[in-house]
Amino acid sequence: MESVIRLKVRYAETDQMGVVHHSVYAVYLEAARVEFLEAIGLPYAQVEARGVYFPVVELGLTFRAPARFGDVLEVRARLSGLSPRDLRFAYRVEREGALLAEGFTRHLCQVGSRAARIPEDLYRLLSKVYSGPPFGYSPAYPLTRQ
Amino acid sequence: MESVIRLKVRYAETDQMGVVHHSVYAVYLEAARVEFLEAIGLPYAQVEARGVYFPVVELGLTFRAPARFGDVLEVRARLSGLSPRDLRFAYRVEREGALLAEGFTRHLCQVGSRAARIPEDLYRLLSKVYSGPPFGYSPAYPLTRQ
Amino acid sequence: MESVIRLKVRYAETDQMGVVHHSVYAVYLEAARVEFLEAIGLPYAQVEARGVYFPVVELGLTFRAPARFGDVLEVRARLSGLSPRDLRFAYRVEREGALLAEGFTRHLCQVGSRAARIPEDLYRLLSKVYSGPPFGYSPAYPLTRQ
Amino acid sequence: MESVIRLKVRYAETDQMGVVHHSVYAVYLEAARVEFLEAIGLPYAQVEARGVYFPVVELGLTFRAPARFGDVLEVRARLSGLSPRDLRFAYRVEREGALLAEGFTRHLCQVGSRAARIPEDLYRLLSKVYSGPPFGYSPAYPLTRQ
Repeated sequence: MESVIRLKVRYAETDQMGVVHHSVYAVYLEAARVEFLEAIGLPYAQVEARGVYFPVVELGLTFRAPARFGDVLEVRARLSGLSPRDLRFAYRVEREGALLAEGFTRHLCQVGSRAARIPEDLYRLLSKVYSGPPFGYSPAYPLTRQ
Repeated sequence: MESVIRLKVRYAETDQMGVVHHSVYAVYLEAARVEFLEAIGLPYAQVEARGVYFPVVELGLTFRAPARFGDVLEVRARLSGLSPRDLRFAYRVEREGALLAEGFTRHLCQVGSRAARIPEDLYRLLSKVYSGPPFGYSPAYPLTRQ
Repeated sequence: MESVIRLKVRYAETDQMGVVHHSVYAVYLEAARVEFLEAIGLPYAQVEARGVYFPVVELGLTFRAPARFGDVLEVRARLSGLSPRDLRFAYRVEREGALLAEGFTRHLCQVGSRAARIPEDLYRLLSKVYSGPPFGYSPAYPLTRQ
Repeated sequence: MESVIRLKVRYAETDQMGVVHHSVYAVYLEAARVEFLEAIGLPYAQVEARGVYFPVVELGLTFRAPARFGDVLEVRARLSGLSPRDLRFAYRVEREGALLAEGFTRHLCQVGSRAARIPEDLYRLLSKVYSGPPFGYSPAYPLTRQ
């Protein structure tokens, strides 16, 4: 399963090179991840309301072409790794089908303020949509270093 | 009393006009306000630890000249309004003495999640450093609309 | 004329009070303004491509209730002031009809790097949609200090 | 050679988990990189003034412990990779000596709007301070995938 969000680049997201600042992509990925979770019936606000958190512990991004003010971007997200204690998402940022950036995030499960196993019901839901390392990442890539 | 912080404009804070994006000034003012509170013995982290918050309920900014990447800015803050339930700060953003922007913020006092009187000890400390509407703002300006 | 955009609060836009940080509203207003300009046939990217800029020279925001992660917000924009050299927008940020914040921005016209008259064709287009000070701002409010 | 900057976490940089949002670290790394370049006599503003850019093409971050509002962080930067067309920095984010995050960025050299060789004089300066993959990154880590 893969989710897609569409977003429009904001002026504030550009920098003086005239392109979207690289730090903003982490925010785009997050928006895509949130939508993914919502799509599978796990709205993140409700997850947090149970005291369960998935803080980002690893982030990787490769930039292939710049995005610009006003661009309409598509951000695709997939669950690309799942273990009892952590999970991993992979992302693609595209503009009209052209790949602008790709990335991944790794998340630990935390209950309250400590690392913990992913609660049973969440784990079951996530298992159903786990689709393995996507998008042809090579074995050398950290994505598979679980 | 007036506090001053010095900060260096970050690349990420610029936009494609080649200047600091206007939204970033709100962050600069906040950094100046935090330093002001620390200077008078009220570190905001400790204020919040008591369940006391001063959320921004009004913000005004006037931009006179742009700031650019690498500029070293001075941000001056003064407590310019104080009542039992709210307070107001006034700010100047300068570069080598030249005024780039000025602004104000108004804050309600909140204890837990509701509006409340400013706790006695905080109020006393704030009273000591309250210096009235500073920087020559004219009476028409919202700063004085308390 | 009034334009409306709908946006979903991003996690990154929250702060440790658990609400949208006040600086982010300037970004929301900007997104609404960009959409307004696009709706009247003046995509801002094309305006800039002609070397015409409308930098923000004044910003005012009043916060009435907090927005939270995941909230779907509506941001309404209107052209509330227009002169040969500057213009002014007024905004409302709402959630399901409830007013969360209102604000305004004032912009100078700049051609290349200097203040200038708004080019004829742009001025004509803007005149058509100028709708006066909206949303019942009181005369004391800076909006009317033109 | 290694440069170090000291910065204080801003309130706006926190999110509703009560910690610094992960996207902000990219901004911290950038501030450290800018300081590194300045320390070796290559102020980035002057580099850009010549039409030379080093856009980020890869970014990797590992988060070990959260940073919080008011924390004073040290961000260390080293030039960890250098070829005629790209370069790589490695970073550590620390608080009182404890490692909070580590990361790297890879940059292409661009002259005007196209990829290009790093200009001779810049390359010479960079060579002098190139110190190889630092901080004990293991061979499997992308840092060494040059």
